[in-house]
Amino acid sequence: MRVLLTGGAGYIGAHTALALVEAGHDVLVVDDMSNSSPESISRVQALTEAAIPLLEADVRAFVAVRDFVRRHGPVDAIIHLAGLKAVGESVADPVRYYDVNIGTSVAVLQLMAAESIPTLVFSSSATVYGEPEILPLREDSRTGIKLANPYGKTKRIVEELLADAAHADARLRVTALRYFNPVGAHASGLIGEDPSGTPNNLMPYVAQVAVGRLDRVGIFGDDYPTPDGTGQRDYIHVMDLAAGHVAAVENARQGFDIYNLGTGIPVSVRELISAFERASGRSIPTEVLPRREGDVPSSFCDPRKALDSWGWSARRTIDDACVDSWRWQSRNPNGYADRP
Amino acid sequence: MRVLLTGGAGYIGAHTALALVEAGHDVLVVDDMSNSSPESISRVQALTEAAIPLLEADVRAFVAVRDFVRRHGPVDAIIHLAGLKAVGESVADPVRYYDVNIGTSVAVLQLMAAESIPTLVFSSSATVYGEPEILPLREDSRTGIKLANPYGKTKRIVEELLADAAHADARLRVTALRYFNPVGAHASGLIGEDPSGTPNNLMPYVAQVAVGRLDRVGIFGDDYPTPDGTGQRDYIHVMDLAAGHVAAVENARQGFDIYNLGTGIPVSVRELISAFERASGRSIPTEVLPRREGDVPSSFCDPRKALDSWGWSARRTIDDACVDSWRWQSRNPNGYADRP
Repeated sequence: MRVLLTGGAGYIGAHTALALVEAGHDVLVVDDMSNSSPESISRVQALTEAAIPLLEADVRAFVAVRDFVRRHGPVDAIIHLAGLKAVGESVADPVRYYDVNIGTSVAVLQLMAAESIPTLVFSSSATVYGEPEILPLREDSRTGIKLANPYGKTKRIVEELLADAAHADARLRVTALRYFNPVGAHASGLIGEDPSGTPNNLMPYVAQVAVGRLDRVGIFGDDYPTPDGTGQRDYIHVMDLAAGHVAAVENARQGFDIYNLGTGIPVSVRELISAFERASGRSIPTEVLPRREGDVPSSFCDPRKALDSWGWSARRTIDDACVDSWRWQSRNPNGYADRP
Repeated sequence: MRVLLTGGAGYIGAHTALALVEAGHDVLVVDDMSNSSPESISRVQALTEAAIPLLEADVRAFVAVRDFVRRHGPVDAIIHLAGLKAVGESVADPVRYYDVNIGTSVAVLQLMAAESIPTLVFSSSATVYGEPEILPLREDSRTGIKLANPYGKTKRIVEELLADAAHADARLRVTALRYFNPVGAHASGLIGEDPSGTPNNLMPYVAQVAVGRLDRVGIFGDDYPTPDGTGQRDYIHVMDLAAGHVAAVENARQGFDIYNLGTGIPVSVRELISAFERASGRSIPTEVLPRREGDVPSSFCDPRKALDSWGWSARRTIDDACVDSWRWQSRNPNGYADRP
């Protein structure tokens, strides 16, 4: 298959591009580089010896993207990863989140209609569940419970848009993947997470503390009703996540469907930090801070649907993720700004 | 005040423009004329002897709209009426509904930020409630219950967008108006509802049967649990609705708020048809057809919030609406295509 990745130069995108090439598929990338670097795709090409055509453009630049697809196509499937993803930023500038996250999804559907591309895999998020009623979270668990941030709302809205679009056009095969917490990096140490500015997520924050770019890790609350009092999340290795995208594209079925991508195993903040200390051999200073508004004590998924449907499951542990993340961070302390 | 109306040449727009001018405000109109005619604004100008600058453009044409606003501004408030509104069409082409209805609302918020316009009144719909749990519907009634059509979903999504935007920017004064069923026309008979193609709504359909453009009125279900078995709706005279917009603009307060605009009085399909027969002196042939999917037996509002806050209430009856609608339809059997 030939697969177009929007936002393909980002963290999930580069790892998914690699996994697709390794599975024998051709890959095209559109990315506006607003939060990514073309260096990531250069490295994927170096690792795989595959040519990955890259268009530096907003996916809403319809004519440019269509011509790119026609030049390098035909395209069988789109994996739509382009979008904004910072929860706090979405509260401060909600209009931009509705604009970009819904607008790019509309543009992708318009491109699919114009170019007769049947298959779409969308990067949704566990955020759509809001505050979990029952754990583990299943795909049919209620969504949107006390969902306060525009980032999560736009993911939920796009899921609705996709369901409506698939309902209206029986040719479409649309899959939404609800990511839990992607962490880690490719084992080569050549590609990894390279957030601009201070990381919003725990693992890259810990990695930057380990490498000396940041002082200490803030632990937001250690009095949650969890075994060690710190919040639990379902951390999924980015290469497992990438494999999930390959499975979703290869198994796409008519209509609209949703899959959780997680491990099913809750890991606490303190457990993650300890794993990172073991992986890096460095001590990670921490500081306990007050709980953050909107944080839930625990969130993890039931990953059985993807296993039953696709035979996919996460195979890497939190220790694997820390080892890989540390390899990436220690070899590229400034991310893609450090050329090898 | 100087008020910009998006979609100002449409049915609600032309009547609101008239009411604003009569209340002493200046009006500017942006309309892409995709479902309206500049003739409506010509007639409002003739009726009021006011100059109403008109830009024929999609409200998403940012530079054109901004320059228009700068040329004729400063603008104190925007009434955002532009959008697609056909329920059936939204099921068949959902992508277009998400694109236009959300995209134009994003564009309006971007324009407000760029030009420091603090006040927005948004044309929402009673559709956002979905299937009523308890009647009458209050502004704090649950929304989105079994909401099956993308039209209603986009109205609900834009309400969320507006709430998030007002939360992020304390300068904003944003009001969503949930219209029940607008009917009737201005008493002059010069402006009214002029749907393109076969009308989707009952009153213009009945009017076109009365005038001979259509054969008979289909009654979708006469076995509902209502007094005469036909569905009940809350029909609000468009000039009352227009007055509601004037009140919303004049009383706009910081933050985001929602108001029902309806009469609070349920009127059945058969009652509306009888009222139209009285108003027109003509017999309206009917045909009972099966229920339509998604139709609810009865929907009407509690209109007290707007009365308590603004002193606004609907003053015209269903008979007034039929008389005015008939005057408009009989004098303009082909709508604005009939020049006076």
